[in-house]
Amino acid sequence: MFIESLMNIAKRMDLLGSETAFAVSAEAASLASTGKKIFPLHLGDINLATPKSIIEAASKAIDDGKTGYCPAPGIPELRKALAKDVGDARNLEYDMDNVSVQPGGKPSIGKYIAAMMEKGDAVLYPNPGYPIYESQIEFYKGIAIPYGYINTPEGLKLDFNAIENGIKKGAKHIFYNNYNNPTGASSSNKEIEKLAKLVIDNDMFLISDDAYFDTLYEGTPKSIASISGMYERTLTMYTFSKKFAMTGWRLGASIGPKEIIEQINRLNVNMESCTTHFVQYAGLAGLNAPKKETQDILDVLKIRRDLLVNILNEINGIEAHVPEAGFYVFPKITELLKMTGFDNVEKFRKVVLKETGVSFCGRHHFGRPLENETDYYIRLAFSGITKNDLDEGMNLFKKWIESNTK
Amino acid sequence: MFIESLMNIAKRMDLLGSETAFAVSAEAASLASTGKKIFPLHLGDINLATPKSIIEAASKAIDDGKTGYCPAPGIPELRKALAKDVGDARNLEYDMDNVSVQPGGKPSIGKYIAAMMEKGDAVLYPNPGYPIYESQIEFYKGIAIPYGYINTPEGLKLDFNAIENGIKKGAKHIFYNNYNNPTGASSSNKEIEKLAKLVIDNDMFLISDDAYFDTLYEGTPKSIASISGMYERTLTMYTFSKKFAMTGWRLGASIGPKEIIEQINRLNVNMESCTTHFVQYAGLAGLNAPKKETQDILDVLKIRRDLLVNILNEINGIEAHVPEAGFYVFPKITELLKMTGFDNVEKFRKVVLKETGVSFCGRHHFGRPLENETDYYIRLAFSGITKNDLDEGMNLFKKWIESNTK
Repeated sequence: MFIESLMNIAKRMDLLGSETAFAVSAEAASLASTGKKIFPLHLGDINLATPKSIIEAASKAIDDGKTGYCPAPGIPELRKALAKDVGDARNLEYDMDNVSVQPGGKPSIGKYIAAMMEKGDAVLYPNPGYPIYESQIEFYKGIAIPYGYINTPEGLKLDFNAIENGIKKGAKHIFYNNYNNPTGASSSNKEIEKLAKLVIDNDMFLISDDAYFDTLYEGTPKSIASISGMYERTLTMYTFSKKFAMTGWRLGASIGPKEIIEQINRLNVNMESCTTHFVQYAGLAGLNAPKKETQDILDVLKIRRDLLVNILNEINGIEAHVPEAGFYVFPKITELLKMTGFDNVEKFRKVVLKETGVSFCGRHHFGRPLENETDYYIRLAFSGITKNDLDEGMNLFKKWIESNTK
Repeated sequence: MFIESLMNIAKRMDLLGSETAFAVSAEAASLASTGKKIFPLHLGDINLATPKSIIEAASKAIDDGKTGYCPAPGIPELRKALAKDVGDARNLEYDMDNVSVQPGGKPSIGKYIAAMMEKGDAVLYPNPGYPIYESQIEFYKGIAIPYGYINTPEGLKLDFNAIENGIKKGAKHIFYNNYNNPTGASSSNKEIEKLAKLVIDNDMFLISDDAYFDTLYEGTPKSIASISGMYERTLTMYTFSKKFAMTGWRLGASIGPKEIIEQINRLNVNMESCTTHFVQYAGLAGLNAPKKETQDILDVLKIRRDLLVNILNEINGIEAHVPEAGFYVFPKITELLKMTGFDNVEKFRKVVLKETGVSFCGRHHFGRPLENETDYYIRLAFSGITKNDLDEGMNLFKKWIESNTK
């Protein structure tokens, strides 16, 4: 079943990236199939049930016949509810024309790029970061300019030198992911304000990936869209996946200036017609659900987070910050690699997986290394593993390190 | 909320088309909101319930926790079942590597084009036809070459002169939609064989939009992929939308050579991560459901079809063929327009909608008119209207025509 002349993959596909973390899943699954117990710390999926009120709303919507097409921008009820919810949490005013419902958080990335990034435009994006930013910028022939983070005693901080260099190179758009995946980095108010000033002074547009905005464990999350002058310059990527444990439902939204939302809606018509109709009613129920249901999810995750960070920091050669939001710990393991005789995170990762069953990602799964990088990092996700398995797996990891330190 | 310098829509968006039929829906909805009774014959949505076994499987999958991410190409169970179902119906052998699950039938269009069509490639597509073919070919900078249909006493037939002219212009890919939307045209075995020979002789690749394959009212549907030499040259666009009354569930698949499926899977990772997890189990249940459940849907539709075609052919100036599959009647109204004094389908459509509430599309909603077109057509969809309303609406239409004939 192969005719060479027909299998000319289009050149643009050479520009398309991927989420290489999926390869780690496949590796872990393959090892699991041999009978080895796996401790899954590699993927940002959630092993908690979707809240009951959401599930019941989905059933009711199916029974009510919400099984036909709905408008490409989403059902008006959900667009209105999102406008209010996202607006209220950011002290901003949106209406339904500012909202385009999406099948997940991810589609906003490619759709913004397709709609608003001209071929050849320079676009800043976080690296380490969600790999689809870079992939979509390059697929649509933009110039992807990475900016990294600086490790400080207070956690990882935006590398403003890199951002300013990107601006000097003419960057017109910037992806910003506060409560960052994979690093867990969150911005202080001062940092957000500094970034906003740069964006405004240089007449740029910002795409705020708020995937983890509603998973802040303590305090009130802050969005850069709330800073004066940023409302007009921000597209918020919203997702139901994380806060409502709905990753597999595929429901999210793009929220921002209606001129951009109109273009994204045109892409919805072309790409998927609409997001699953009854799932939109389920999301609506989530927005109206008792806060306890989502708080329960965060409470469980917080216990895991603290357990994981504590064990990591007990291990010689590892330095882990406590993430204020999200599911990821991103410890520096530079010393650990030296102590265990590895010169490469990927080799270390594979040996640990094979010998202990503990599965995690490396920094290299979240973007090409930057020029000046000298430290090594791994990412451990605590959203898809029970507390007991986390405890068991991390103790195995710790013992393995102790017995392999040279 | 508008900063002009930020609202530079990317040039590629000028190339993007749409489904202008949605504008007819909006017009009808707006009229309905004034209290006017609307007879909806404009959209290919289905006003019948999704079969029970499918709904129950969705609930069970949610209860079983199929609410997290699943693999980007789809769950293996559904890929295997589709390989068998689609293969068996076409006397072909597929396995799961030949199947990429999609959020609907539509995504296969853009993903095939993005993956396999080089910028500047010529691509043949049916016109009248589903407008997204042309939109996606042009969005990715291909050269879209339309081919039409010839009206014969046996129904609409492929215009092979147009196809051969397209091949002379170097067309490398061809979209083919047997059981065509909007015309209802279906190909004889001879026609399918003739098309297959052209595709093979000219080393082309064919995308077979099989949206209506499983809605054939009598007999056994035939796919061009079954013709010797075409298996390697065909990508089948499969959808659960039509046969299972699942339009709003968003579930479909691309099925074909695994080299192409691999590329489409890469686009899945970038565009939507995966199709809604538990919906895939619902689709699986559909494939295994008692045939009676889907037959019931077809039985209801067939009654409507016959009613609609009969009334149309009772009206002077209208010539309607009986569609062998699908939901659409595409009558020629050239004489009718003359008799009622219209020089334009759109004007006629708007007046009829306003005065009778009967809402339908024109040929112009399904592609730019071809050079040599002299006849006028409208499309009436009978999938979204009850038998009683169909009867009532079409009688109003008939009376309106009679009292407006000059």
